[in-house]
Amino acid sequence: MSLALRSDTIAAISSAQGLGAVGIVRVSGPRAHAVADAVFRGRRVPSRTPGGRFLFGRFLDAAGNVIDEGLLLVFRAPHSYTGEDVVEFQAHGGPAVLAALLARTLELGARVAQPGEFTLRAYLAGRIDLAQAEAVGALVNAQTDTARRQAAMGLQGALSRRVEALSAQLTRVLAAVQAMLDYPEEGVPEEDRERPLRAAVQDLEALLHSARAGRMAQRGARLALIGRPNAGKSSLLNALLGYERSIVTPVAGTTRDYLEAALELAGVPVTLIDTAGLRETLDAIEAAGVSRARELAENADLVLLLEDGSQPREPVDEALLAPLEGRLLRLRTKADLPAAWEDERSLPVSAASGLGLPELREALRQRLLGDVALAEAWLSSPRQADAAERALAHVRAALELPDELASYELEAALEALAEIHGRNVSEDVLDAIFSNFCVGK
Amino acid sequence: MSLALRSDTIAAISSAQGLGAVGIVRVSGPRAHAVADAVFRGRRVPSRTPGGRFLFGRFLDAAGNVIDEGLLLVFRAPHSYTGEDVVEFQAHGGPAVLAALLARTLELGARVAQPGEFTLRAYLAGRIDLAQAEAVGALVNAQTDTARRQAAMGLQGALSRRVEALSAQLTRVLAAVQAMLDYPEEGVPEEDRERPLRAAVQDLEALLHSARAGRMAQRGARLALIGRPNAGKSSLLNALLGYERSIVTPVAGTTRDYLEAALELAGVPVTLIDTAGLRETLDAIEAAGVSRARELAENADLVLLLEDGSQPREPVDEALLAPLEGRLLRLRTKADLPAAWEDERSLPVSAASGLGLPELREALRQRLLGDVALAEAWLSSPRQADAAERALAHVRAALELPDELASYELEAALEALAEIHGRNVSEDVLDAIFSNFCVGK
Repeated sequence: MSLALRSDTIAAISSAQGLGAVGIVRVSGPRAHAVADAVFRGRRVPSRTPGGRFLFGRFLDAAGNVIDEGLLLVFRAPHSYTGEDVVEFQAHGGPAVLAALLARTLELGARVAQPGEFTLRAYLAGRIDLAQAEAVGALVNAQTDTARRQAAMGLQGALSRRVEALSAQLTRVLAAVQAMLDYPEEGVPEEDRERPLRAAVQDLEALLHSARAGRMAQRGARLALIGRPNAGKSSLLNALLGYERSIVTPVAGTTRDYLEAALELAGVPVTLIDTAGLRETLDAIEAAGVSRARELAENADLVLLLEDGSQPREPVDEALLAPLEGRLLRLRTKADLPAAWEDERSLPVSAASGLGLPELREALRQRLLGDVALAEAWLSSPRQADAAERALAHVRAALELPDELASYELEAALEALAEIHGRNVSEDVLDAIFSNFCVGK
Repeated sequence: MSLALRSDTIAAISSAQGLGAVGIVRVSGPRAHAVADAVFRGRRVPSRTPGGRFLFGRFLDAAGNVIDEGLLLVFRAPHSYTGEDVVEFQAHGGPAVLAALLARTLELGARVAQPGEFTLRAYLAGRIDLAQAEAVGALVNAQTDTARRQAAMGLQGALSRRVEALSAQLTRVLAAVQAMLDYPEEGVPEEDRERPLRAAVQDLEALLHSARAGRMAQRGARLALIGRPNAGKSSLLNALLGYERSIVTPVAGTTRDYLEAALELAGVPVTLIDTAGLRETLDAIEAAGVSRARELAENADLVLLLEDGSQPREPVDEALLAPLEGRLLRLRTKADLPAAWEDERSLPVSAASGLGLPELREALRQRLLGDVALAEAWLSSPRQADAAERALAHVRAALELPDELASYELEAALEALAEIHGRNVSEDVLDAIFSNFCVGK
């Protein structure tokens, strides 16, 4: 079902599920105020209340019984999130109360909102662009401060502004190229064509470079610890957990056979997984061979190889480690004890004394985020990264082609860029984006 | 630490934990508006905004970076939940956003609110009485519509009004008794003393009778199914689950060894437990003897004994069932098949055809709620029930005693009644009540 082009009245529980002191039912659309008039009893009538006011009163069911007491927020079009008439019922946050309140709004002609439908309406009303809409989703889902700040910048339009600057640059080149099409013998001066296009390529490359780090900050990274028995995997895991703030408690079903621990490392939510396949002995990998190592590389963003530095080194089959290259970090553990061997590729760490842990965290940060600075505007979704990739390919092609063909490439690049912040986006794409939202947003 | 007598500024996340489209951070106390001025940037300054208005703007951290965009609700003392100056930040509901926002209010001098502290302040400010405060907690925790409605009536003061009517009645008797103390030879006429006291006893008994049902509606009941293998325990359980709305999905850790299913039966959240100890074979109980039956009776509010009606009856040791008396409901299962036996104590049911299921649900309702009607004001906490018990004992004593001693008993009864809706309540009692609340309420 297509979400767009609807103008009926929608309703949803907009606060998180579960027990809360306060919960919110949001209603948007032409009948929002009429719904509020039927549900709400207070000193004022909602439909005759100016926008920007909230009222205290009672929420009634069809029989006139009190569902709850609470606040009613009145928004008048276009001064609302969706740009439509909106009311928000702020009630006591129990699930039964909010369910009863929502049911009442449905009886009165509202429809249950699809996931993301409020934000979709905000986009369709031109109140936010697509990059901002995706930032809203990222903000709700942010698990760490880094992810939150990144999303907040996106919501403020940082990415949209950067993309618009890029578009303006390409548009100027396109205009210059098109102006010269009738005078092919003259050609566009180098400083109006090649230089700005090379700058655009660099800019797009930087944006794409940031995309992986951005996704990692949002979605988190999976960290596997491998090593022989007694290499110190558990101790290091505990030291990392103890040092850094734990952001998720182990799930209820946790047993001794399974441990999933989460911590925040340099703003990245990192999941340390201890199960067959991630934290496992090197012996097991050696037994299973290269295929097991490849599997490991596929499942983990980073693999820490722990080797006991206090004992003579047991050689590791380097062919086995080859598939992990690029995501392997070697650690010489028990570095508080006299070193039995040294290897400049191995970072000395001691879970017991804490030696090397700050360096390990910095190394993890480097591997996970690279040199992407927090203050940048980040591509926050695979969709945006895909559009940026296509824009980059078109700009690169434009650099190699004569003016007439270059102008087609530049137009295609501009179209791709516009997808990032949301012009020329098909309804299917919109549906795909907004259906990833939570209900009530 | 005592919660009462504090007048500093408190802050908490008031919406439920987890992902939500919208979340709320609430700040109450003398510095609430100053905190808002420092955090909020919009068209208006919060401290110069009239109460009852909400503003749209940005929430800033100490460095001036945007934490989020959202709404700010401005309340001015005494027109707020707590009776103090209050602001509510309505932000995007992600945990990281709300945590950052709360942290910012703490930097600005707010203190993290204790559980229930907002409602405690509402009580201390005289905005709600203690019975209403407990209704707020019950409303948040309500799992079913019955529990929710009951709590909503309490919040409206239904219980308080009933207790006050009772108190007024007792006060009139007390006045009559005291007026006669100087004229003992006259005595208080029967219609001014015995009749209203007997009425009060009946009223208190009815209140107490409702208390158990009220607690059951709030907390739910545990239902155990016992029977021999093939008596149809699983089928009946599934039929009950399928017929009634399931209110809780089985927990994540569910395995084949363990099933905890929850459903709503006549407004009571009922947990059907299938583990060693609850849903278990009669054979196992017979093997373990009476002690096992006693244990079962302790752990379950109701025990359903299922016997296969399509097969010749296997006798059950009645001595074994004695400890379950009062909470035992006998069922003759597979009643769609020809009956191999009949027993007027046994309710015929068929999971296959649905025969007898409405009668079973009505029987369960009767056992769980008795004849308590929903519209009554209910005692909603053990604390209230305890106070009512004491009031009842004092009134009964007053009926038996001469005027002078009776007047002491009546005074004691009035004091006990006042505890229900919250006069003469010690600070320790207040702390105990409010610390059961969720944070942010």
